[in-house]
Amino acid sequence: MIGIGVVGYGYWGPNLARCISETDGCRLASIADFSPAARKRAAGRYPAAEIVETWGDLIADPQVDAVVVATPTRQHFDIALAALRAGKHVLVEKPMASSSREAVILIEEAEKRGLVLMVDHTFVYTGAVQKIRELVTSGAVGEIFYYDSTRINLGLFQSDVNVIWDLAVHDLAILDFVLDTCPLAVSATGAGHIKGSPENMAHITYYLEGGATAHFNVNWLAPVKIRQTLIGGSRRMIVYDDVEPSEKVKVYDRGVSIDGETDLPGSTEALNRMRLNYRMGDIWTPQLSVKEALLSEVEHFVQCVENRVKPMTSGLSGLRVVTLLEGATQSLGRRGQPVEFAGMREAS
Amino acid sequence: MIGIGVVGYGYWGPNLARCISETDGCRLASIADFSPAARKRAAGRYPAAEIVETWGDLIADPQVDAVVVATPTRQHFDIALAALRAGKHVLVEKPMASSSREAVILIEEAEKRGLVLMVDHTFVYTGAVQKIRELVTSGAVGEIFYYDSTRINLGLFQSDVNVIWDLAVHDLAILDFVLDTCPLAVSATGAGHIKGSPENMAHITYYLEGGATAHFNVNWLAPVKIRQTLIGGSRRMIVYDDVEPSEKVKVYDRGVSIDGETDLPGSTEALNRMRLNYRMGDIWTPQLSVKEALLSEVEHFVQCVENRVKPMTSGLSGLRVVTLLEGATQSLGRRGQPVEFAGMREAS
Amino acid sequence: MIGIGVVGYGYWGPNLARCISETDGCRLASIADFSPAARKRAAGRYPAAEIVETWGDLIADPQVDAVVVATPTRQHFDIALAALRAGKHVLVEKPMASSSREAVILIEEAEKRGLVLMVDHTFVYTGAVQKIRELVTSGAVGEIFYYDSTRINLGLFQSDVNVIWDLAVHDLAILDFVLDTCPLAVSATGAGHIKGSPENMAHITYYLEGGATAHFNVNWLAPVKIRQTLIGGSRRMIVYDDVEPSEKVKVYDRGVSIDGETDLPGSTEALNRMRLNYRMGDIWTPQLSVKEALLSEVEHFVQCVENRVKPMTSGLSGLRVVTLLEGATQSLGRRGQPVEFAGMREAS
Amino acid sequence: MIGIGVVGYGYWGPNLARCISETDGCRLASIADFSPAARKRAAGRYPAAEIVETWGDLIADPQVDAVVVATPTRQHFDIALAALRAGKHVLVEKPMASSSREAVILIEEAEKRGLVLMVDHTFVYTGAVQKIRELVTSGAVGEIFYYDSTRINLGLFQSDVNVIWDLAVHDLAILDFVLDTCPLAVSATGAGHIKGSPENMAHITYYLEGGATAHFNVNWLAPVKIRQTLIGGSRRMIVYDDVEPSEKVKVYDRGVSIDGETDLPGSTEALNRMRLNYRMGDIWTPQLSVKEALLSEVEHFVQCVENRVKPMTSGLSGLRVVTLLEGATQSLGRRGQPVEFAGMREAS
Repeated sequence: MIGIGVVGYGYWGPNLARCISETDGCRLASIADFSPAARKRAAGRYPAAEIVETWGDLIADPQVDAVVVATPTRQHFDIALAALRAGKHVLVEKPMASSSREAVILIEEAEKRGLVLMVDHTFVYTGAVQKIRELVTSGAVGEIFYYDSTRINLGLFQSDVNVIWDLAVHDLAILDFVLDTCPLAVSATGAGHIKGSPENMAHITYYLEGGATAHFNVNWLAPVKIRQTLIGGSRRMIVYDDVEPSEKVKVYDRGVSIDGETDLPGSTEALNRMRLNYRMGDIWTPQLSVKEALLSEVEHFVQCVENRVKPMTSGLSGLRVVTLLEGATQSLGRRGQPVEFAGMREAS
Repeated sequence: MIGIGVVGYGYWGPNLARCISETDGCRLASIADFSPAARKRAAGRYPAAEIVETWGDLIADPQVDAVVVATPTRQHFDIALAALRAGKHVLVEKPMASSSREAVILIEEAEKRGLVLMVDHTFVYTGAVQKIRELVTSGAVGEIFYYDSTRINLGLFQSDVNVIWDLAVHDLAILDFVLDTCPLAVSATGAGHIKGSPENMAHITYYLEGGATAHFNVNWLAPVKIRQTLIGGSRRMIVYDDVEPSEKVKVYDRGVSIDGETDLPGSTEALNRMRLNYRMGDIWTPQLSVKEALLSEVEHFVQCVENRVKPMTSGLSGLRVVTLLEGATQSLGRRGQPVEFAGMREAS
Repeated sequence: MIGIGVVGYGYWGPNLARCISETDGCRLASIADFSPAARKRAAGRYPAAEIVETWGDLIADPQVDAVVVATPTRQHFDIALAALRAGKHVLVEKPMASSSREAVILIEEAEKRGLVLMVDHTFVYTGAVQKIRELVTSGAVGEIFYYDSTRINLGLFQSDVNVIWDLAVHDLAILDFVLDTCPLAVSATGAGHIKGSPENMAHITYYLEGGATAHFNVNWLAPVKIRQTLIGGSRRMIVYDDVEPSEKVKVYDRGVSIDGETDLPGSTEALNRMRLNYRMGDIWTPQLSVKEALLSEVEHFVQCVENRVKPMTSGLSGLRVVTLLEGATQSLGRRGQPVEFAGMREAS
Repeated sequence: MIGIGVVGYGYWGPNLARCISETDGCRLASIADFSPAARKRAAGRYPAAEIVETWGDLIADPQVDAVVVATPTRQHFDIALAALRAGKHVLVEKPMASSSREAVILIEEAEKRGLVLMVDHTFVYTGAVQKIRELVTSGAVGEIFYYDSTRINLGLFQSDVNVIWDLAVHDLAILDFVLDTCPLAVSATGAGHIKGSPENMAHITYYLEGGATAHFNVNWLAPVKIRQTLIGGSRRMIVYDDVEPSEKVKVYDRGVSIDGETDLPGSTEALNRMRLNYRMGDIWTPQLSVKEALLSEVEHFVQCVENRVKPMTSGLSGLRVVTLLEGATQSLGRRGQPVEFAGMREAS
């Protein structure tokens, strides 16, 4: 029975605590939060758990075998590092850290001590994303041409990070899981519309190995909520719409192939059309697992800790995502000037 | 009664011919096409019109007072210039020309001779775009924060121009009409997935005067058809969905305003939220004119010719659009490196 | 080459004329309409056709081998009967006649003379309905449980027939084609909201052989346009949404089967749930033929005339539909009191 | 501080318990359920509440001032009657009772003792339904022409009641709240497709005073989930789509008015169209309160108990709904034969 402590009982922490309390093989040992109101809510809901004020106390608790870090991003590094140094396994919120340098230090610390370091890339554990990876790795999609995602709504503006670190982080975690690919460069544009606030809108293009591209449209100031990803491949194309209540993933047997150029002179029509074959086939909407993603993720964490195996969303995937965020933020500050990724291959 | 000749009876020419035949104050005098099949179709449909092989013959016809150019883009300049030099008014397909240099020559020629030069920016004449301009210029939207458009489908690949010249041209024409703004720079990314074919997918960001941005997502290789534009303003936001059969324009009384930062320590929630007021008000879907846009446009052209006035979509708007296309294509070739627009202010 | 004459050049006649003019093996010989304006439009569009005022003249024309009747319903019988008596094949608009008695007379007349009598049940010739019939007859849907259709919008009120004869006629023609079934009884309710106008809203339930039901919701006074049909079967279920631009037919691998009742006492949950297995499988959206239905139908008519074979939508199907309309109208006048169909079996 | 006891901790009871625990002015005093598993869940979640096995014990508890009845329908009457006789206020699940006779007895018992008797017509307390009533009573909709609702999905089959008592009860409660009208008669059709199970599909039409009709389409065996209500009025029309995450209520400024018949002879078009004016105006989507309906309802119940006032969803509204359910079930058994409501006027 693994004792788990949760640091941070604000927005996401309660969900983690609930899933821990519903998972076999672990128990919710402790919750830490600076806020008295948060501690009161936690105590009312979980009378059997220790409720403490500081994460230092939580980490020091011998009943705590593993620490879940659900605080604002800028605190991830300090808390996770202290936990690892105290010999505790760690599940840390996304983005894993404020910089790739910090992420590397955490990975090395976990490696050295033989501890599990996992990042809460929740979407990876949804039925939808699992199905998409299956479709991509089985070859059903063919060669990947592009990945194009839109994640916008009238959202909760963050004061400490820009919209890329808040919203694109979800999509980069999905991309990292679904494609076995290596970004070579990034170009990002965007703007901030609220004085004194970081950029609340961005468009980011990653150039991937093999000629594919991945684009992310993120926006905190949109009138409507859109959560849509298109994946274009040489054999099939996928539309993943997370706002859809049940038909989230659709597979389109559609595409185009080339036959050769026409050389018939004369017709204004023939002159500017190539000899392309358009394939307009059926659409298939697979039934998806409806198990709660966070519950699957906590179960996976517990199993990784029990068996000392590397999680699906390990520290390395967290590092790759943070590296992609850093590059995008750099380019964003230079109006889209491309930024190259040097060391991405090694992080894979 | 203005005699109008149509050059090119391929994809779009028949629509122009039909609208000319249905408009008072003008008559369809002549149709030119290199293709015998196209000429046969034209003759069957319009027994009263002259049907000729070359645009030279059409321009030389004294019954032709105005020439409509509906050929592939690379022929626009030669035909339009010859028509103007022969003293004919011109309505030319979009994009107006293959380069801004060509566009300038056409404008100067028309100016010199006192002839009407109009560009077929069809969307400008739709009830939807007219309503959007009304909303923007009346102040209902407030300060414009962004313009974000998606125009994708499994489309007709073009062999002579990339997807920007084929699809983004529509949205740039709308942008030019709706906003009185001046692009300062552009960053564009994209890729071509069919060997030997130009880029079939692009994402383009324009930086506008006053801090606003305009983004365009265009793609010939998408599994679904999306025609959606979001306009974010300080007072209201607009969603324009051209795939919707009737509810194309929705006005959202939504937005965000800032109160000041919180400085309450302690709560993990309070720490990373600013004091923003989110306004979630009503949505309004105005009834739009359902008159066919191309018919309104042909009527407008005839009135401009009759009264020698400058059209809503004059040569200058055509030049601005071509300049934006040129800049985007330049940046596209350099992986998003920004390209500055020097002379845009003068073209306005 | 079959010469075809079209009686009525109002709303639907021009579509029939266009399809005839585009079909091999026939020619548009003549058009008749009382209205001078309609005749002028017809003459401008089809200079080679005879344009006459009365249907008597059209039928008398020896160049006319087959007559298409596209007039208001109350005139169908007189015109079709005169055409048949003059030895002409007939394609008549739906509903075929104003009463089943009239329909029987037409069928007998055509039978006696060996002429083709076809009813314009256009939807039967769409790719969507053809696919649905294929799914039903192949057994993919299993035993049919129900057919449930909604056809509503803010529509063109008719002064001479109620909404059932105007809208439900489409759905009854589809039902008749898709299911090999026999209605036993009908219960219909409805109301008229515009003074002096027939019922503009109705809900109709047919009881079919074998326990299935078919329901039709039709309404001229609805704020939105809905064209949706659900077909529930023991193996699969179909949703046919005709407003969808491309994904019109979806096949759901969903259903329910029973295991036996629970008899566990105690739980308030267990007490009122049976032991049912819910099957929630994939959804499949087949690609459909995009050929214009009316064109396919005119081609079919020409082939039937050439080869003297019975059409898919013969006079008998027209009779069955008229009989169903009569029954519904009777029940509608009695607030849903059921009306039995006696002779339906024979009409099949 | 009102002590509330909840009888039944199966599907809906936990939601009621949670709302009671979050409402000021009351406390969750006791929970009763036959099932040991249910009692265990209740005890874990609410350590401060009494957890008992029988509703008799709960009613006998002096700490319980009011009883919430969340059991299967057939037990409502016995439990509610015993609670009232013990001097407890009652909030009972819908449908209020198994028959109108039972409902009348409960109303009289509560009346006699001066106790609050409220029915859990939850939808009445949603922002959507509150807004719809406001639109109807303010005259914005004009004269009501019809109410047409669809509530279908692949649902939880009930073994003890047919689909009308399970699904239509929601819509009848909404109808009863929104319209001040009196049903005169009902015609219902339907079918059961699972052997040994009650009808799982029904279409019900109520004839209302003043010529309006209300129709309900309910189905447990549909492939898709639809929750849509159309309300047609002489001035405006409403579409209420409860599946929509945020834009649930839309108000259409659309309708039709009559001018008089045309009498122009000759045109086949003019002959069968009346002189109707179609109004196609704007659409307005009001922002709705997003407060949880059940929470508002529990607050209302507490206030009614504190102040001894009649609730919005009193026993009388429960009685009217049960009467409508009885009539529909009667007609359903007779293939749509209409059933008249005699005493509805008195129940209002």
